[in-house]
Amino acid sequence: MEIKALKDLLPYCLENCTKKTLAVIKAEDDHTLTAVARARKEGAIEAVLIGDAPVIKNLLAQIGEKEEDYHIIDEAGEREAILKAIELVHAGEVDFLMKGLLETKNLMSAIVAKTSGMRTGRLMSKFDFVEIAQYHKLIALTDSALNTKPDVEAKKQIIQNALDVMYSVGIQKPKIAVLAASETLNQKLQESADAWKLKQMWENGEFTDCYLEGPISIDLALEKESVEIKNYQSPVGGDADMLVCPDLVSGNMMGKMMTICGGRAAGIIVGAKVPIVLMSRAAEIDDKFQSIILGAIASQKGA
Amino acid sequence: MEIKALKDLLPYCLENCTKKTLAVIKAEDDHTLTAVARARKEGAIEAVLIGDAPVIKNLLAQIGEKEEDYHIIDEAGEREAILKAIELVHAGEVDFLMKGLLETKNLMSAIVAKTSGMRTGRLMSKFDFVEIAQYHKLIALTDSALNTKPDVEAKKQIIQNALDVMYSVGIQKPKIAVLAASETLNQKLQESADAWKLKQMWENGEFTDCYLEGPISIDLALEKESVEIKNYQSPVGGDADMLVCPDLVSGNMMGKMMTICGGRAAGIIVGAKVPIVLMSRAAEIDDKFQSIILGAIASQKGA
Repeated sequence: MEIKALKDLLPYCLENCTKKTLAVIKAEDDHTLTAVARARKEGAIEAVLIGDAPVIKNLLAQIGEKEEDYHIIDEAGEREAILKAIELVHAGEVDFLMKGLLETKNLMSAIVAKTSGMRTGRLMSKFDFVEIAQYHKLIALTDSALNTKPDVEAKKQIIQNALDVMYSVGIQKPKIAVLAASETLNQKLQESADAWKLKQMWENGEFTDCYLEGPISIDLALEKESVEIKNYQSPVGGDADMLVCPDLVSGNMMGKMMTICGGRAAGIIVGAKVPIVLMSRAAEIDDKFQSIILGAIASQKGA
Repeated sequence: MEIKALKDLLPYCLENCTKKTLAVIKAEDDHTLTAVARARKEGAIEAVLIGDAPVIKNLLAQIGEKEEDYHIIDEAGEREAILKAIELVHAGEVDFLMKGLLETKNLMSAIVAKTSGMRTGRLMSKFDFVEIAQYHKLIALTDSALNTKPDVEAKKQIIQNALDVMYSVGIQKPKIAVLAASETLNQKLQESADAWKLKQMWENGEFTDCYLEGPISIDLALEKESVEIKNYQSPVGGDADMLVCPDLVSGNMMGKMMTICGGRAAGIIVGAKVPIVLMSRAAEIDDKFQSIILGAIASQKGA
């Protein structure tokens, strides 16, 4: 089957992946637990809940879940909960992680620490699948949350991270749009020069099993009408699978605007030893659920 | 009346403004002429059409317009057409300009030339009103098209240009969001530091008759739910009238994403001697029409 929408992730996961185990760090958050419970009941995952055990058990009861269906680990301290989760990863007892009731920066600083053993030698980056009613398939967006001003080498790794996820969900030869404000190279603008260099790398065979175009504007990447009006020639034009953002602030603004305009999103951190499900506190429960399923699929790779 | 949507611009214009005269530069474009004809028939403008006269007359006939209803000036050459339009501005015969069938960069380089007399001592910038179904009023977006990397002083002028337009459409004390990826000051990130400085300028009374907040993320600017979840305290939170973009590429990506997601837009260049209606070739006719009405209202200021 082909993944065209977020709702396709679950059947794809059930059909193609063995059941994975998720560890939730500081799990005492009702929205997070509701999303985790749904993924468990759908048969996609088992879950280890790390945090304030009495609060977690109380919340589970409130959402109609039995505590016996989960492995609950009592670590009320934030730092202890993070370290416990990392320990479980190294022991091979869990396949991926999820942020519960804690600040992203606290979690990520512990994860990126050299002593954590969570590094792979590759840059970590955020990967989002965004779904908007006006586009004919999912849009992969990267990196809108982790690397503030990636240089061209960092962007190369960000793209490679994203390609791994796209292959894991069965997308063949993804079409990558390295965004700028225009399709014309302007060496004075970093995003334009970077996009041009990445296209050269692609032409030199440094990215395989994909198409890559850049610099390219967002309308040429996503809108067939703009492609026709400008008579733009590229396999990526109007049919992009992946949008590579110039920097964090532009990706953050554009990505959030898609959800403000009614879009939905699933997001994970990739490039660490295991995927990390990481959605903002304000994200809807269904988006958190879809992110868990995406994390389960992406964690299959190392299996 | 209060302007809440693009459709409110026309009644506001008819009620509050004297009839203005628009000069269209290289008018031989059917979408442009259709939008101009609609604005004329609604009683909002008179129009001078500069360009290849036989082609213009032919196109007018095709869309059911009489050539006697327009002042047609035969200047088929692009440069000549631009210079003629500027001459009409200086002669006080036209109140605002519109780009027809020519490249934005060719038009703008002639306009910004010191010899054009079109400069006012203020920076020129793009102003857009964007309408999305998910927000309760129009969103002013600036600058997403003209200044690539404005510094803090340039951003101050961009904001002042935008405030003039907002006052001209009757918006009292607009709420300005100077965007960054987060609401926390990060001195290492230019957009964050600039936003913080602009907020300080506002606190020092350098911007009057407005609220200004920054750094602020796009979700805190537009989403009441995010404001509640984060317990964010600012009159701008969830109720912004204006989004000030960190730079051109981020504004371009975010602005176009709003229209890709079903939004509509009207846009003009402000800060020159007269407003210049400037929409991309791919813009819909209705968006061009709304831009003309916005230009007519904005040109009232100097009347």
